[in-house]
Amino acid sequence: MTDSADPSDSGAARWDGLITGVSLATLDGADGYGEIRDAALGWRDGRLAYVGPRDALPGREDTLADEVIEAHGWITPGLVDCHTHVVFAGDRAREFEMRLRGESYEAIARAGGGILSTVHAVREASEDALLAQSLPRAKSLVADGVTTLEIKSGYGLDLANERKMLRVARRIGEVLGIEVRATCLAAHALPPEFADDADGYIDAVIEWLPVLHGEGLVDAVDAFCEGIGFSPEQTRRVFEAARALGLPVKLHADQLSDLGGAGLAAAFDGLSADHVEYTSQDNVRAMAEHGTVAVLLPGAFHVLRETKLPPLDAFREHGVPMAVATDCNPGTAPLLSLRQAMQLACTHFRLTPGEALRGATVHAARALGLDDRGVLRIGARADFVLWDIAHPAELGYWLGGRLCRGVFAGGRMVA
Amino acid sequence: MTDSADPSDSGAARWDGLITGVSLATLDGADGYGEIRDAALGWRDGRLAYVGPRDALPGREDTLADEVIEAHGWITPGLVDCHTHVVFAGDRAREFEMRLRGESYEAIARAGGGILSTVHAVREASEDALLAQSLPRAKSLVADGVTTLEIKSGYGLDLANERKMLRVARRIGEVLGIEVRATCLAAHALPPEFADDADGYIDAVIEWLPVLHGEGLVDAVDAFCEGIGFSPEQTRRVFEAARALGLPVKLHADQLSDLGGAGLAAAFDGLSADHVEYTSQDNVRAMAEHGTVAVLLPGAFHVLRETKLPPLDAFREHGVPMAVATDCNPGTAPLLSLRQAMQLACTHFRLTPGEALRGATVHAARALGLDDRGVLRIGARADFVLWDIAHPAELGYWLGGRLCRGVFAGGRMVA
Ligand SMILES: [Zn+2]
Ligand SMILES: [Zn+2]
Repeated sequence: MTDSADPSDSGAARWDGLITGVSLATLDGADGYGEIRDAALGWRDGRLAYVGPRDALPGREDTLADEVIEAHGWITPGLVDCHTHVVFAGDRAREFEMRLRGESYEAIARAGGGILSTVHAVREASEDALLAQSLPRAKSLVADGVTTLEIKSGYGLDLANERKMLRVARRIGEVLGIEVRATCLAAHALPPEFADDADGYIDAVIEWLPVLHGEGLVDAVDAFCEGIGFSPEQTRRVFEAARALGLPVKLHADQLSDLGGAGLAAAFDGLSADHVEYTSQDNVRAMAEHGTVAVLLPGAFHVLRETKLPPLDAFREHGVPMAVATDCNPGTAPLLSLRQAMQLACTHFRLTPGEALRGATVHAARALGLDDRGVLRIGARADFVLWDIAHPAELGYWLGGRLCRGVFAGGRMVA
Repeated sequence: MTDSADPSDSGAARWDGLITGVSLATLDGADGYGEIRDAALGWRDGRLAYVGPRDALPGREDTLADEVIEAHGWITPGLVDCHTHVVFAGDRAREFEMRLRGESYEAIARAGGGILSTVHAVREASEDALLAQSLPRAKSLVADGVTTLEIKSGYGLDLANERKMLRVARRIGEVLGIEVRATCLAAHALPPEFADDADGYIDAVIEWLPVLHGEGLVDAVDAFCEGIGFSPEQTRRVFEAARALGLPVKLHADQLSDLGGAGLAAAFDGLSADHVEYTSQDNVRAMAEHGTVAVLLPGAFHVLRETKLPPLDAFREHGVPMAVATDCNPGTAPLLSLRQAMQLACTHFRLTPGEALRGATVHAARALGLDDRGVLRIGARADFVLWDIAHPAELGYWLGGRLCRGVFAGGRMVA
């Protein structure tokens, strides 16, 4: 054909994709959902190119994008799960059953339970087997809206097996088409080889860090600072090694007692202090000063039937951003959905659904040091989720259900 | 062709379907999962025809059934959700948000919240609209393993609207291909027309019951016996009307206080007493004598952050079967998965995963007066679920995740 009446034929469409007819919860702004009703969302080259009312679109819809989707429901930013142990091998559901039957920790350990049973299973598994076992869990998280996923090592506890876990973390991101942030948590527990020599184990961890970092496997460094974990002084040595490498730190802090872990993380300009049930007012202030995010993990709180709440009002008062994460792990947080962590945060911690949604998006992104996602804003990564809901408060409301209708990461549909 | 070397060509296969390669949790027997490893399950005409080891099958697999499925994972009986309010209209997620923001009940009611807002929305909705709004919730339940679903009326509160709800309940069963048991819960709350005249309202309910029953819409009769609901004497009058019609009864009993509701249900040979947090030892004994099931509803317990546990040890000691149900409703139990109710029952009530699975299958069936399902046994209804799990304890363990690989009701795949 020689003539063309349609102006769109004269050139490429502006955007790669456009969704219309939805409501948006942009979370852009300090408060509220940032609602836009009867809205449209456009993207190009993996970034958001239009976020606004449908009737303000700069042209005819069918000329604006290669693919135009008419939808209903709500779009939120892609969820960011900023604290998981989703890479592991073996199965501890039976241990859960034994605990509920009232059997002792000794009996459970004899029957092969506890964290060292997971360490054993991870060490036994090949890299491919570890990937095969871990992938369904990561897929479950993505299927309920996650587009950025933090994954920790910490069940290998020697150089080769920590490396194997971190490599599997990277591979999960490639396979699922989402961004994975890999955290080295070698200082998670004491392996059998170093029984009664925690300082010696920390020496070893400090030797492994530059090796793993040199292989491009580490985005951040974490530790378990607790009476039953590592001391503040041991944690400080790990953090100094991370700082020497230019790696940001974060910390399992103050979950079961107040060892000042959150303050220690803040002193190293830590990205986040996680759990933080026992964090003191002074350390909340230190977090605020250093921009350290409080990562709430209501899954472990739920399953362990804890009663000590994190200092939520102090976080609010001092402007410490509160993130919400699954903590997905085989021992204490059997969560395969960040949306369900949001529900538990609302129920157990009395977060509003709006706070929980910010906690699982923009604040969680900040807990990973990422400022290009977690909101719907022109220029941000085109990470977003289409939900079959009448109001975004439903995301913190329902347990179960299939509310998620589409998950887009970098403009590509991944679930 | 005139000759046939294959003996299966000489006649019809024995069974309609056969699944092999799975493990079975039959729940057949008084205790444990009734595990059969490397098993097979066959069915014909909607009933189970083979439940046993694969290597004991009475012939070559490809000759035994029209359809043979090789699978892995576990098969359990189809789940039975024996207490739901899944038929409703409107949306109360914003009310949840207002509660979490600390707003008063008065403010919530002024903003259109509370049970009467649901009554209003149900009355406004056409039968088709009510079906359209309720169906996705029922589908969510089925997608996570439910093959028998109890649905209560109780948001209509007049004859026409109670009828509408019960008709929608029946239609949900037809659309989804599962069995729905419809319960008339007209004595749920006091409608505005009868403000300050609860006895007058009970008179009306007693007139409606034979009408609705005559239309084939009622399988059982329920009431809300509570300080903020109806008195034991009013409940007794409803139960007498049900008895006159030959209808079994059940009761919302002792959720917030001990009014002796469980004992009242038992005195009428009730199918179940539900909630039962405040039920006394004497009434547990009465339940045991009359075969009344205790229906545990951990979803409301969870969301209302209750602390008073049902008398679990007394139920165990006296042999009162404990069922687990979602109580799916817009105000206090936002559960769209019976598996998630099982998780909450394990976490909050310390049921073992095995108890929770019995509670969501065989004991729940008994709470509906059904003895042909809830176990995998030759002759039982071919209602079963294929799960992608390594052990049935995982069903009480995970929050979130897509573990369910296939749901069969009467031998037909429904999800
Ligand atoms: Zn953790
Ligand atoms: Zn109920």
